[in-house]
Amino acid sequence: MTSLFRHLRVHQVFGANTDVGKTILTTALVRASAKRGKDVFYLKPVSTGALEDADDHHVKRYTNDLLGKVHPECLFRYDEPVSPHLAAKMKEGEDADNSIPTDETFITSISDRIRYYAKKASDPSHMYVETAGGVHSPTLSGTTQADAYRPLFLPTVLIGDSKLGGISTTISAYEALLLRGYIIDAVLLFQDEYYRNGEYLKPYFEERGTFLATVRPPPPRLSNPTENFISTEGYYKTITSAEVGDEAGLVVDHLDVRHKSRVDELESMPRRTLDTVWWPFVQHGQVKGEKDVTVIDSAYGDFFSVTKKSESTDTKRALLEPQFDGSASWWTQTVGHAHPSLTLAAARASGRYGHVMFPQATHLPALNLAERLVKDGPGKGWASRAFFSDDGSTGMEVALKMALRAFALRHGSNLGANEKKSLGILGLKGSYHGDTIGAMDACEEGVYTCEWHNAKGYWLEPPTVGIKDGQIAITVPGSLASFPSSQTVNAESLAWVYDVENRLHTPLARAYALYITRSLEALAARGGPKLAALVLEPLIMGAGGMLFVDPLFQRVLVDTVRGRRSGSSAQWSGMPVIFDEVFVGLNRVGVESAGTLLGVYPDISVNAKVLTGGLVPLAVTLASKSIFEAFLSENKAEALLHGHSYTAHAVGCEVANETLRLIDRLQLSDEWIAAKASWAKPDGSESPVWSLWDPEFVRAISRLEQVKEVMTLGSVLAIKVQDNTGGYVSQSAQETLKALKACSSTHGDLSAAPGGAPFSVHYRTLGDVAYFMTSLNTSPTVIRSIEDRVWTALSSTSQ
Amino acid sequence: MTSLFRHLRVHQVFGANTDVGKTILTTALVRASAKRGKDVFYLKPVSTGALEDADDHHVKRYTNDLLGKVHPECLFRYDEPVSPHLAAKMKEGEDADNSIPTDETFITSISDRIRYYAKKASDPSHMYVETAGGVHSPTLSGTTQADAYRPLFLPTVLIGDSKLGGISTTISAYEALLLRGYIIDAVLLFQDEYYRNGEYLKPYFEERGTFLATVRPPPPRLSNPTENFISTEGYYKTITSAEVGDEAGLVVDHLDVRHKSRVDELESMPRRTLDTVWWPFVQHGQVKGEKDVTVIDSAYGDFFSVTKKSESTDTKRALLEPQFDGSASWWTQTVGHAHPSLTLAAARASGRYGHVMFPQATHLPALNLAERLVKDGPGKGWASRAFFSDDGSTGMEVALKMALRAFALRHGSNLGANEKKSLGILGLKGSYHGDTIGAMDACEEGVYTCEWHNAKGYWLEPPTVGIKDGQIAITVPGSLASFPSSQTVNAESLAWVYDVENRLHTPLARAYALYITRSLEALAARGGPKLAALVLEPLIMGAGGMLFVDPLFQRVLVDTVRGRRSGSSAQWSGMPVIFDEVFVGLNRVGVESAGTLLGVYPDISVNAKVLTGGLVPLAVTLASKSIFEAFLSENKAEALLHGHSYTAHAVGCEVANETLRLIDRLQLSDEWIAAKASWAKPDGSESPVWSLWDPEFVRAISRLEQVKEVMTLGSVLAIKVQDNTGGYVSQSAQETLKALKACSSTHGDLSAAPGGAPFSVHYRTLGDVAYFMTSLNTSPTVIRSIEDRVWTALSSTSQ
Repeated sequence: MTSLFRHLRVHQVFGANTDVGKTILTTALVRASAKRGKDVFYLKPVSTGALEDADDHHVKRYTNDLLGKVHPECLFRYDEPVSPHLAAKMKEGEDADNSIPTDETFITSISDRIRYYAKKASDPSHMYVETAGGVHSPTLSGTTQADAYRPLFLPTVLIGDSKLGGISTTISAYEALLLRGYIIDAVLLFQDEYYRNGEYLKPYFEERGTFLATVRPPPPRLSNPTENFISTEGYYKTITSAEVGDEAGLVVDHLDVRHKSRVDELESMPRRTLDTVWWPFVQHGQVKGEKDVTVIDSAYGDFFSVTKKSESTDTKRALLEPQFDGSASWWTQTVGHAHPSLTLAAARASGRYGHVMFPQATHLPALNLAERLVKDGPGKGWASRAFFSDDGSTGMEVALKMALRAFALRHGSNLGANEKKSLGILGLKGSYHGDTIGAMDACEEGVYTCEWHNAKGYWLEPPTVGIKDGQIAITVPGSLASFPSSQTVNAESLAWVYDVENRLHTPLARAYALYITRSLEALAARGGPKLAALVLEPLIMGAGGMLFVDPLFQRVLVDTVRGRRSGSSAQWSGMPVIFDEVFVGLNRVGVESAGTLLGVYPDISVNAKVLTGGLVPLAVTLASKSIFEAFLSENKAEALLHGHSYTAHAVGCEVANETLRLIDRLQLSDEWIAAKASWAKPDGSESPVWSLWDPEFVRAISRLEQVKEVMTLGSVLAIKVQDNTGGYVSQSAQETLKALKACSSTHGDLSAAPGGAPFSVHYRTLGDVAYFMTSLNTSPTVIRSIEDRVWTALSSTSQ
Repeated sequence: MTSLFRHLRVHQVFGANTDVGKTILTTALVRASAKRGKDVFYLKPVSTGALEDADDHHVKRYTNDLLGKVHPECLFRYDEPVSPHLAAKMKEGEDADNSIPTDETFITSISDRIRYYAKKASDPSHMYVETAGGVHSPTLSGTTQADAYRPLFLPTVLIGDSKLGGISTTISAYEALLLRGYIIDAVLLFQDEYYRNGEYLKPYFEERGTFLATVRPPPPRLSNPTENFISTEGYYKTITSAEVGDEAGLVVDHLDVRHKSRVDELESMPRRTLDTVWWPFVQHGQVKGEKDVTVIDSAYGDFFSVTKKSESTDTKRALLEPQFDGSASWWTQTVGHAHPSLTLAAARASGRYGHVMFPQATHLPALNLAERLVKDGPGKGWASRAFFSDDGSTGMEVALKMALRAFALRHGSNLGANEKKSLGILGLKGSYHGDTIGAMDACEEGVYTCEWHNAKGYWLEPPTVGIKDGQIAITVPGSLASFPSSQTVNAESLAWVYDVENRLHTPLARAYALYITRSLEALAARGGPKLAALVLEPLIMGAGGMLFVDPLFQRVLVDTVRGRRSGSSAQWSGMPVIFDEVFVGLNRVGVESAGTLLGVYPDISVNAKVLTGGLVPLAVTLASKSIFEAFLSENKAEALLHGHSYTAHAVGCEVANETLRLIDRLQLSDEWIAAKASWAKPDGSESPVWSLWDPEFVRAISRLEQVKEVMTLGSVLAIKVQDNTGGYVSQSAQETLKALKACSSTHGDLSAAPGGAPFSVHYRTLGDVAYFMTSLNTSPTVIRSIEDRVWTALSSTSQ
């Protein structure tokens, strides 16, 4: 991700198959580059087979006349002429010391060499990284090269196949590279008068915006080494000679043009964006200029690759740097950016269906997803139906329509038309359910509002859970009847806090019940809105400021409105209960859905975000049988007349199915098992809650003076900073985090981004709360590295 | 699409490359099948090279002992041993009569043979269709096989490559097939003790849910033909022998299991769907049972492949049939289902980015799309900014928030908090802007409502355009001041109606202006809502019943509220004007945006649906500079605080970019040029409007007694049926269309679906309006076929 330099153009060379002339054409490019630029670096990361046949030796042999301008190198060499993964295994078999390099080691080795050469290279220089075999040939660890090289995101030259069948292998290889998002700057192949693959492929690739060149084939190999050398050298000289058209040189020129236009394009993007784009949730009046624009060139795993904002005039500096996606791209990222399984899921659904009509129709991706969610997912135990829409906000509008209709139907005879329009929501202060106006109307008046916003309902002030000075504490607001002023109740452990069943008979539970009952009575007494639905973000109110609500309070609230204590029932009672699990659902906070923790199921719930693994929009509203039946009749007008054009689009559903499959596998992963163990109860038994963040780290930062409170569940870490102490302690989370951002340059030693490059951290704040969110499969190494940075940043602000 | 039969299992055999043993392994499968089933059909659609080496001859030679159970056949045979596209070209060169078969002819030939064999086959029988070369080897026309065979959607056996490099070619070929949505039932390859590709690939494919089997390699070819025959025959007998494990037979068993489970799954889908899915816009109380569920197995081009609803007990009937997607899948479909270019666009964006954060960030797919839309698309000439959201409804909520804020800011000092909440929309009766509650509140009370719906504004009754008895007529409602009762004004041509500039000085224009002014004065006089925005669906109100509004009326309305006559201005005047172009935009009705036709630009506009070519949800709200500036300040709370998690997701943006590129190319297509010519003015000059539907056909059906009115623009055809005459004329569009549906079985001769199979028509109605919508690239042949069916259906109801 750090391999883009102005002065050093780097390309990786992939082959459509083995034995297509990759080394010969790369050697030709190297020679042509040497004629044009200052230095040419040739890197063969892995070589298998006899030393004298090795590709780097070939390059060396046929560039010896170029006065030291060419620098060939090989990183991993194996004698056996087989695929690298087999060669590595055989060598490992010989001696336990020959352990097989991991992908991380492998990629870092290449990345290190690129950075090393970049320092050494004069302007302009070129570099070619020649892979082994075909695009999907396995590299040392067994990962196929197309996947293994992806973190480097090097622009690509694809060597096509000029033999019989070569049209197919060339196009297939090209598509395999596209599936990984690679920029393919050129396709090269030998001319062949009989099969004429180039003739077919040239217009094929031109139509797809990809440059293709054919180069005359090499002379036949001669048995006499000297004669062979002379003949081959003659060939290389010919194809880089101006007299016959400089076939290889023209390709090098094209690659130079592509390189320059890529750099120019990246540099133009901030200005162009500021001129045409209206960002969501951004006050453009506060955007000071191009430096405030993050240019994302690509993304992989937990990292964006962004253009480096540097005042440095160093012409040899890297133009891109990895940046940790610290908000999981607005809480969507689940298994890392550009996960090949999700790409393939999207591709196969697109290839089989595109998008197809859903009303009164069915297709496998949607049906499989509906069944998974209703019967064996967040709807297990209570839901009967899945209703698809496009995002959390539309999913909540659907949920509200369901609840309002169910309530209105039951109380129909007592409700006038105007009363129906003003039916109210019971919720919590700090709630947020999306930006469409209906979803906003289910929340209190607040910052996320518009002219038409009309808060319909009543919102209770909830107690929250946090850690301060290493101590778990429940902060109970002063508005609670039995608590005259805001106060803190200490808890023995997070496990205890989330063992809701166990806490049902505590005095706090009774205080909660009393507060809720009295509040509702008072509301009714002063003629407040008629409440028709209870709408909760279980466990955490995200956009409201990462408020970890005491789960006991939410449980008591549900029980109170239902007038009973039970997990589920055939019929809703009191008012329909909606769980907005758009943010917390599907293991974002360590549980698939909150119902299990709270010990109560909703009548309606909404999932989105994680649902599609962080790739495309899709939402689902689940409903119980009694909610569904409220819309059943012979009258079409009484149906739930809601739907979006792309309802249950096959791509989204198939990506969701794949995401849920990947999460199921994470349940069994060493990383999750270890994380759960680290949050086990003192007696070693399993806690109902856990986190990917380290408990010692969490407790440690909770003791820092400038930290007001910290809390974590699952992949989420929220740090509330002191904002009223002035002086050396920062005024807000944004301020505190500035120090964190600076880590990128000063703490290169903490790095863990792909390729071993120093990385920066992209973060979002909510007022005085700084939060960090990982993917569900972020590696412990990366998380530890973020923890170190957060610790360093917070410590630095207290000095 | 019609190749699924219970009694005849059909597989296509693709090769990872040429020379991987495709014919040998297919022969092995044929032999193993013959041991298990009744009949085995082997089809080699194209054979190149010497007759005695032809694959079908090989199959014949080595199955001669199987008592006539095996039926090999070749459809297209060429002598030259080169790729089929070259062989076909060479033969064409020899004699002009040897014209190269089109893809349509080629696929129909195969499809015909499958249907023929299905009639002949006993239960259970097997069929193998062996392709030529690799997955992407070009077939006769030059289209690569992976694309050319796609309309048949045959389940696939992929023959992997056991040689050096074969891991790469096998995986690449597999991915090329996945990109076309193929079901891959098995990967087969030869065992190879040295390269051990099978060892690597088995777990690789298992992890991806795909079965892989290795089969021992054949003996070396012997020079003596008899010895070679004996040796080869011995090989085939060995690998289908129970003693050594019946390698080929186990694969056949697996294919049988997959076949059965596919059929079972299709049959289970209606019940499972009825048990778990809550459909949009469907009254489940009216769904009578499984027969009311359309099971979509796949889709391609303009056709779904659906399970056939047949009462027939014919055990040999086809289980699937093509069904024309007559609503363009709720108005989204643009270039046909499963278009490979859109799949690749989605894949490359997913592979490069996944989804990445958008606030204060930028990435190429979003930036390129924003620039295209703002500067060189529907925003050209007036828009300054693009704001992305997820669907038409959210795009409209954004538009409303923009307009309300701009209005409130200008009139702020005169507006109380409650007045802001009840600012009204000026619109037309029959408007529809989406299902979220805010978008609904911008429309009149109507069927698409919910408890919270609160129509905010005032809606004028618009005049409409239609064709009756071959005559273009504008129906002017009685509410128009100068027209005491509803009446009809005849127009000379559609071209004349849509030449708005020319009509501005007609008496009708003055009558419109008077009506609008008086209506607004009357509204103000009776203390009606304060109007803050004019919201129009230009040209056609879609969901309201495909109402083609007189464009002159919309033009006069915009001019009137603006108090001036001009196309654009630096500042909005009167009230912001919103064009909801979600349905009509981006050439759905023949123009990229309505502004050009109406001669006025909006201040805000919304596009969705066609935007992403019918693949994934994405919407864009375009805004002028003066609207954007209404939100500019130093105060974050004054920003447009709206955004969805997947805002400007890279997949959607890249698919949109590709869609717009494909539409640009359609502009130059013969089909569009011919369609435009057919709608030219009487003097042959270009008309401002045109349609893909044939003008003679449109006029002809407008003369039918049971047709009240018909109208068309672009890809849309709307037929309003008589619903008050009783008797032999149907009571509603649904009734009339029942006759149309029946065409599928009785009018096979009209068929034009891929593979030449009879097809049915999937359609949606809006009350008394039947509408048909093609993709923008639906072939004239298909459109003519639909026209014939519509004509036949309408004629049959009048007999």
